[in-house]
Amino acid sequence: MDRAPDTLYLHLADQLAGSIRAGTLARGERLASVRELARQRGVSVSTVVQAYRTLEDARLIEARPRSGYFVAGRAGRRPAEPDTTPLPAQAQLVAVSSLAAKVMALANDPDVLSFGAVCPDAELFQQERVRRAVSRAAQRHRASLCRYPSGSGALEFRRAVARQALALGCQLDPERIVSTTGCQAAISLCLRAVTQPGDVVALESPTSFGFLELLESLHLRALEIPTHPRQGMSVDALSLALDTQPVKAVLAVPTLSNPLGSCMPVGERRRLAQLVAQRGVPLIEDVIYNPLCGPEHRRAVRSFDGSGHVMLCGSYSKTMTPGVRVGYVEAGRWTPEVRRLKTVHSGSFTELMELALADLLLQPGLESGFRQLRTAVAARVDEARGIVAESFPKGTRVTDPPGGFILWVELPPGSDAMALFEACLCERICIAPGAIFSTTGRYRHCLRLGLGGRWDEAQRRALRRVGELAHRVLPEAVSTG
Amino acid sequence: MDRAPDTLYLHLADQLAGSIRAGTLARGERLASVRELARQRGVSVSTVVQAYRTLEDARLIEARPRSGYFVAGRAGRRPAEPDTTPLPAQAQLVAVSSLAAKVMALANDPDVLSFGAVCPDAELFQQERVRRAVSRAAQRHRASLCRYPSGSGALEFRRAVARQALALGCQLDPERIVSTTGCQAAISLCLRAVTQPGDVVALESPTSFGFLELLESLHLRALEIPTHPRQGMSVDALSLALDTQPVKAVLAVPTLSNPLGSCMPVGERRRLAQLVAQRGVPLIEDVIYNPLCGPEHRRAVRSFDGSGHVMLCGSYSKTMTPGVRVGYVEAGRWTPEVRRLKTVHSGSFTELMELALADLLLQPGLESGFRQLRTAVAARVDEARGIVAESFPKGTRVTDPPGGFILWVELPPGSDAMALFEACLCERICIAPGAIFSTTGRYRHCLRLGLGGRWDEAQRRALRRVGELAHRVLPEAVSTG
Repeated sequence: MDRAPDTLYLHLADQLAGSIRAGTLARGERLASVRELARQRGVSVSTVVQAYRTLEDARLIEARPRSGYFVAGRAGRRPAEPDTTPLPAQAQLVAVSSLAAKVMALANDPDVLSFGAVCPDAELFQQERVRRAVSRAAQRHRASLCRYPSGSGALEFRRAVARQALALGCQLDPERIVSTTGCQAAISLCLRAVTQPGDVVALESPTSFGFLELLESLHLRALEIPTHPRQGMSVDALSLALDTQPVKAVLAVPTLSNPLGSCMPVGERRRLAQLVAQRGVPLIEDVIYNPLCGPEHRRAVRSFDGSGHVMLCGSYSKTMTPGVRVGYVEAGRWTPEVRRLKTVHSGSFTELMELALADLLLQPGLESGFRQLRTAVAARVDEARGIVAESFPKGTRVTDPPGGFILWVELPPGSDAMALFEACLCERICIAPGAIFSTTGRYRHCLRLGLGGRWDEAQRRALRRVGELAHRVLPEAVSTG
Repeated sequence: MDRAPDTLYLHLADQLAGSIRAGTLARGERLASVRELARQRGVSVSTVVQAYRTLEDARLIEARPRSGYFVAGRAGRRPAEPDTTPLPAQAQLVAVSSLAAKVMALANDPDVLSFGAVCPDAELFQQERVRRAVSRAAQRHRASLCRYPSGSGALEFRRAVARQALALGCQLDPERIVSTTGCQAAISLCLRAVTQPGDVVALESPTSFGFLELLESLHLRALEIPTHPRQGMSVDALSLALDTQPVKAVLAVPTLSNPLGSCMPVGERRRLAQLVAQRGVPLIEDVIYNPLCGPEHRRAVRSFDGSGHVMLCGSYSKTMTPGVRVGYVEAGRWTPEVRRLKTVHSGSFTELMELALADLLLQPGLESGFRQLRTAVAARVDEARGIVAESFPKGTRVTDPPGGFILWVELPPGSDAMALFEACLCERICIAPGAIFSTTGRYRHCLRLGLGGRWDEAQRRALRRVGELAHRVLPEAVSTG
């Protein structure tokens, strides 16, 4: 299933990236125009366009209207990034849901300045376009509103998913795709298909508290695997865990894992696919964030899987529109069981939203829509990193993800992020404390910042204020020293 | 919480019904006009209209356009009705899903003449009205498509549900209602909130195979309670079962239980509410079919519950439109747990369909829409009963439900309904064999006829053919005797 990559533009992008990192091309410097560079290198104009777009996605260069491309500048001082998270703990029963529910309730409170949720703001999406797609679907598929839908979902939608999956390197059979009410629902189905209460599930550390809530609800034990803020879950550590513990499933977000924003290198993705196939363990792969990265980070682990051990779960809530609650799963060898669970527990879903989404997915300009979204969120994430560097205590580390709208902040060791959460709440600011992203208790000095929501002067001021308040929760040795 | 009934029209309806049953008013006879009767009895015109509608719902009289009301005639000979189903069995682990899945696949095969499903035909609904409601919701609530919905569902929808619940005698707080993707999904949430694998759930016998599939999937044991084809689940037998077995939940359809079509008398509903409150056992009450009955059968058990032990589950798939997959649950004292399970496992759902349904539910003419649907299906169900009486073997019994589109047929004892199912399949006719409606093996001579789908000459012919084929599956003593 491995494909030869379209290497030419990637090769060119790589060379230019090297020149930028080495300082050969300096910050703010104007790059050759597309036509010039195509002439210089003897490549096509479209190859240069693709290379420039790749660098834009990596935020190494930026386009300025009517001026051309420039080497991007980073605001303020560059904060340090966190290290790999610790070695695997023992598998733990999960109990994060009450705190997580509190954070989410606050995150959605309109009176609170929120960095708690990871939902992109409605303004980032083309509302009118979505509305038109829904009305069009209601007109064209009127009869679908008056009959029971099929258990697997609207075929048009499943075909559109299969077509989109080509960008992940996956050839999916639409007949084996099952629609869901979102990615979390897809993952819930997969976990229920392959585990029993008490079983051990391996996942990134730290991880999405939504996953921990699922595990808690299903009485599963979480085994957290060391995860590097850039390279993602350690395949070596996972391999060790599979040797030593009765892991029944692996749950991973290879692209932009939440909250670290890590992206596994392609070679590690291949190793991960081989590992789970060898051990016969299902891998539940969440690809919800893939379009928020450039093409070089999008390839799914599933694309290396020839044995049906990877269950691919996705949705378009983070990238097309959060209100159309439609996701999907292609569950490999567990497809019949997943389809049965969906049908028995939920019946089927209204086809209308699936049909509207299929329409949106197949319209031209989809990729440029993703690009716009990436650029819009990249700018604010960069700005937020600058504020962290300026306002947070010395020794604070923060991730530098290649996409998405999430930052993970490590305060100096010994800091009390729960106290910071409480202090922020008193000023009606919501952050997500590190404790809800793990069962290990290892991230008590950490916090997650969700930057998908509103971004204006009030938010900037609030983020500076979080930094000021963070000075009060430093361990005594530091704050008095 | 008990309300004084609006007795005047019911009293009048009752008197007229007595006269019809006694033969004082003969079959085919024209009734007094609304104005005449109002004058005669000294009541208002609207009281007479309500009384006539109640009798129409009970199919004792029929309206003929521009001619007035007539005492209804029943076609052909009247078949006998079945008896109460047997005494409680031991609780059983469930294994019906593979046969049930086969039946459902066939029931939805367009090449098969189907009596297998219980989905009303698209033609029975006002497709254009539904489409307009969806487009209007997309226009008015455009922003809802671009933001995450609330975990409980759109407030407008929950308010509409609360208003509809008044017709069930229930005062619900919209804040405690949780939207779902249908009634089965609501019941799944309730079962997961109050049971653990291995627990015993009491339910009607026979019961919906969808319920048995849910129990099977959750590794629950089914305890089937004797059920009378008219009076519904025996509260006495349930009480005995609660005394002698570790029942963790009761699942009941007091109005038009599937497949028997029974309706519990109001007094029994009250006793059931008292029983589960006394014993502290949750009752999951399915009210999906309530609008398919006249007002006298609609009152929910929940309306007698002051202690929060009744979890009310419903949807509009059988009565408004099957394609809008929106249901609800008000889970009494288990509301927080049910809401949490929904949020963790499914996230929230698109609000658009809920908003469209709220619009439809609050439009005038809702009740007359239900009435039209009742009348349309009552006519065909009556016709089908006539065909059963004429074409099926002597000794066949069939239910006479006060609404809905389901008939339960008992062939003479010893008949093999599975063989009939197979024989019908050879002629591309699908029926639902009795075996999938129970874990007890007691209904092998029974079948369910779903009459909500197309109803034309081909269906009538097919039903006669089922009757002919049924003669081949009689026990030897009968067929050779």
